[in-house]
Amino acid sequence: MNYPNKIKKEFHKNINYANRGMDLENIINETNEYYLEKDIALIYKKPTPIGVVKVSYENNKQVINKAYFATQSTLDYNGLYKGKYVEFDAKNTESKTAFPLNNVHPHQIKHIRNVIKHGGIVFLIIRMNDIIYLLNGPDFISFIDTYKRKSIPYDYIKEYGYVLEYNYNKGINYLKYVDLIGGFVNEEDK
Amino acid sequence: MNYPNKIKKEFHKNINYANRGMDLENIINETNEYYLEKDIALIYKKPTPIGVVKVSYENNKQVINKAYFATQSTLDYNGLYKGKYVEFDAKNTESKTAFPLNNVHPHQIKHIRNVIKHGGIVFLIIRMNDIIYLLNGPDFISFIDTYKRKSIPYDYIKEYGYVLEYNYNKGINYLKYVDLIGGFVNEEDK
Repeated sequence: MNYPNKIKKEFHKNINYANRGMDLENIINETNEYYLEKDIALIYKKPTPIGVVKVSYENNKQVINKAYFATQSTLDYNGLYKGKYVEFDAKNTESKTAFPLNNVHPHQIKHIRNVIKHGGIVFLIIRMNDIIYLLNGPDFISFIDTYKRKSIPYDYIKEYGYVLEYNYNKGINYLKYVDLIGGFVNEEDK
Repeated sequence: MNYPNKIKKEFHKNINYANRGMDLENIINETNEYYLEKDIALIYKKPTPIGVVKVSYENNKQVINKAYFATQSTLDYNGLYKGKYVEFDAKNTESKTAFPLNNVHPHQIKHIRNVIKHGGIVFLIIRMNDIIYLLNGPDFISFIDTYKRKSIPYDYIKEYGYVLEYNYNKGINYLKYVDLIGGFVNEEDK
């Protein structure tokens, strides 16, 4: 399949593969902590929602005795960067050829459309073939609306995604591309 | 105590007391659902963070068998309104004369300062004496830094807070004042 090349992409050089063994969630947490420490942005992972079934008391403290993990209807990470609202989710796929769309819940897809409509910055961070990509929300939605398929071919992710390089102690500097997609800098100025 | 009147306040007329019996969290959830339905804003309550101690499996499904409620280091509600980042917390106090500052955790206070610094809109919704007030983050921080007290006198909240009226099915329209504090409209245009 051939996709129109909407934005001129920079050459993907020197990808650091040191992150191979690391969990994507840990890498993102490390990145967000770096942003927080350096006063660059305030981005947090939302707690996992749970449905509490049974609660008791131990020394006047509430203890949850039975609960289930529930599904987030928004994305896992959100926050504030240069006055702008930023939201994203992190997704892993073992597939080497296509990103299965059932990785993203229908209400999350609806939420991504909503964030775009209300002027927020929204994207997915996808780890595939040991490379971490940032796929901008509008490019993700545009694929869904145009191709009506059950998965996004790897070629599309390579074409539209921005490669995030891992840096020890700093994590993956995804805000570099948020600057770009959020309209903070021009492609030429980078 | 006499506080400088920073902003001309509108006359608080016709406060609807139908909300007296209602839980503040429910009122805010109702308001946020109204905003979502009417496509006005995307504001969600973050799930309560928990510390999971023990997990088992029941029919291949994870069940939490022991967990504790943890403290949110940010505020409970955040989201997106007109492209802007909005965050707030809801606080009740039984005291009729002053809002005890130990209602707000030190890391939440630090977070409020951070949100202000990064250009977000941040505030508290305080229910006191059966009236619901919106106290803008900068006014809250300004009190803390200026007066170094353990509680905010009710007079200060009356002076700086915006009264939120309850409306059946719509809840409290706090975005009316977010328009004001977020710089979307002038006080004169209201």
